[in-house]
Amino acid sequence: MIKINRNYLKLPENYLFSEVAKRTQEFEKHNPQTDLIKLSIGDVSRPLPSVVVKAMKRACAEMGQSKTFRGYGPELGYPWLRQAIANFYQQFKVQLDPDEIVISDGAKSDLSNLLDIFDTALTVAMCNPVYPVYLDTNLMLGHKVQFFSANIANNFLPLPNEQITADIIYLCNPANPTGVCYQRAQLKQWVDFAREHQAVIIYDAAYTCFIQDADLPRSIYEIDGARECAVEVGSLSKMAGFTGVRCGYTIIPKNLRTADAVSLLQLWRRRQTTKFNGVSYIVQRGAAAVFTPAGLKAVQQNLDYYQRNVRLICQTLDQLHWSYVGGEHSPYVWVRCPGARTAWECFDFLLKQTGIVCTPGSGFGSAGENYVRLTGFNSYTKTRAACRRLLTLNKKMH
Amino acid sequence: MIKINRNYLKLPENYLFSEVAKRTQEFEKHNPQTDLIKLSIGDVSRPLPSVVVKAMKRACAEMGQSKTFRGYGPELGYPWLRQAIANFYQQFKVQLDPDEIVISDGAKSDLSNLLDIFDTALTVAMCNPVYPVYLDTNLMLGHKVQFFSANIANNFLPLPNEQITADIIYLCNPANPTGVCYQRAQLKQWVDFAREHQAVIIYDAAYTCFIQDADLPRSIYEIDGARECAVEVGSLSKMAGFTGVRCGYTIIPKNLRTADAVSLLQLWRRRQTTKFNGVSYIVQRGAAAVFTPAGLKAVQQNLDYYQRNVRLICQTLDQLHWSYVGGEHSPYVWVRCPGARTAWECFDFLLKQTGIVCTPGSGFGSAGENYVRLTGFNSYTKTRAACRRLLTLNKKMH
Repeated sequence: MIKINRNYLKLPENYLFSEVAKRTQEFEKHNPQTDLIKLSIGDVSRPLPSVVVKAMKRACAEMGQSKTFRGYGPELGYPWLRQAIANFYQQFKVQLDPDEIVISDGAKSDLSNLLDIFDTALTVAMCNPVYPVYLDTNLMLGHKVQFFSANIANNFLPLPNEQITADIIYLCNPANPTGVCYQRAQLKQWVDFAREHQAVIIYDAAYTCFIQDADLPRSIYEIDGARECAVEVGSLSKMAGFTGVRCGYTIIPKNLRTADAVSLLQLWRRRQTTKFNGVSYIVQRGAAAVFTPAGLKAVQQNLDYYQRNVRLICQTLDQLHWSYVGGEHSPYVWVRCPGARTAWECFDFLLKQTGIVCTPGSGFGSAGENYVRLTGFNSYTKTRAACRRLLTLNKKMH
Repeated sequence: MIKINRNYLKLPENYLFSEVAKRTQEFEKHNPQTDLIKLSIGDVSRPLPSVVVKAMKRACAEMGQSKTFRGYGPELGYPWLRQAIANFYQQFKVQLDPDEIVISDGAKSDLSNLLDIFDTALTVAMCNPVYPVYLDTNLMLGHKVQFFSANIANNFLPLPNEQITADIIYLCNPANPTGVCYQRAQLKQWVDFAREHQAVIIYDAAYTCFIQDADLPRSIYEIDGARECAVEVGSLSKMAGFTGVRCGYTIIPKNLRTADAVSLLQLWRRRQTTKFNGVSYIVQRGAAAVFTPAGLKAVQQNLDYYQRNVRLICQTLDQLHWSYVGGEHSPYVWVRCPGARTAWECFDFLLKQTGIVCTPGSGFGSAGENYVRLTGFNSYTKTRAACRRLLTLNKKMH
């Protein structure tokens, strides 16, 4: 019999987004006059800055000329892009050797593929609620999974505890889906814990671009000791609108070694050179343009745009006296369902009363049962219209 | 202690290309007057057709405008590209449902990642000599590996034998590095064998674009029964010059199921939706342009260009009375080292006598010990110059 990976058969189906789509369509069918507004969007909506488009067009043109055509590139990424990222990190006083940075087609690929370099008998720990990719990729490999809960009691910022015995600890900061952000001293507790327990932190930095406060850490490597225990996965998806362009990177410090001195960076480089053939030259040119002064200025304008939306959402929730966290350093607002509703009850309530689509928090884990996630990724006009509709709820609810 | 995948520590280092580079540089240093010619190139050199460049530039421009911007695409590829590939296969009388085609960033990724959906206790079988990626990715997972030898006795086209007890059988057709191509009846033997033994064939079709003879199979699915046992991995790298652009695809027929009716296509779709976020929109637009009539005509001109080079190399080897196979339906010529030299002796001999760089066959496995690989990927001018130099050897060797 064909021998398949039977862990796949045990994977729970996550119907979150298909169920959201189904209920939304159903509502639209019966309420064709309602102009739906999606505050559920987890994807960027602003176009790419012209400096990035120009760089990619130029790269396309190069590929059409004999003298400038490029075939296989370096599997680990072009040196000029790795150097640009190393330079970018200097503003956070993080010194990286470009060799410690490996370019990829996105954080999702790296977060998944990183598990290849670890043993198959692994225990991992992650937050509840959590970005489902961390969980599913580990279940696919039959790993044991421990959860630490993000809830009111810990201000949604769980800290290490002795129940965690995992080999790998996932941290997403600022967090998806809760939108909260660790302070430096809190991250230090995680770093110390990982070093003491010989665990590896996989630090998902996809949302650091939304951090407003210079005192909050923009990289795990701002924390003493992180170079001995943490892998940082970065992404241009949210930072530069690259969700459809596809580029990310993984940083593994040279200091990150096993007790018998095996370098995790060397394992990852071997994994990537063997199983991957590098990111499209065109995409890498676009990514390098992001890290120029003009590129960084232009992507910041898009980030400011989303942030204005999020601020408006938070102000509206304040007026409604609804509890929430996140939003300040994140595109995500994690809203306590009003009236003790469950996540799906709240979804239906918002849809029917306001025509607003949200994401039920229960789709991210059991701890999200009484929460929904709102995002700042829609247009300002639509976000403003949604907020006006939310304010009309005040009366209806009392 | 940090638990790593210790199979990585057992991987043999393949010094083939670094050793080729080292010896070449050494020679250049001592012979600065010699104009080296690389017939070792395993990468395309012709620029992309303008129809492809235009499509990608247009996609870049779309990404810069609000109305046409695209964020996350479907993880499995845009429907218009999957449909274009399904249409392309119709010329070989192969009917595919576009849902059976999954778009990726290249054949190397797919050939590697496909192993994720299989059990970890796996035995695989592959040719010797072989494309090293098949071997290394399996060693990384601790799989048992069986080899079937391609040699003079079997015309370099090994057929199934009862020593093969593998769960997965790799076939590359036309073959890398030998350049030979199976006939339909020979592939039928492999398909029958796989079905009888409940093995899965992973069919690497990266070089089918070089097949000249309409009687030779361009897809494994031209063979009866292949839909029940074979996965086909396709690539635009050699076909359309996409080695630096990055696009490929994997076909898994819906009929390919385990005895307890688990669909391998469903497993692969689950793997890709969970661990991958799709190929860049820009790249997919370029790939779709390849499959238009203008695109196919333009890429054929590049293929004809390489083929002319290969023909010239073969004619030259004929004049020299050197034994070789391949070249007819492949960019690769597999040359028996003259004078019973080993592969590296032949490498040094050609380098010193003619300034031609080849690839020692021993780098592809023990069965390549007395062979070198030449390719048609250099320019016509340089290939012609190389052939003239080879002809001067006739005298020197006698």
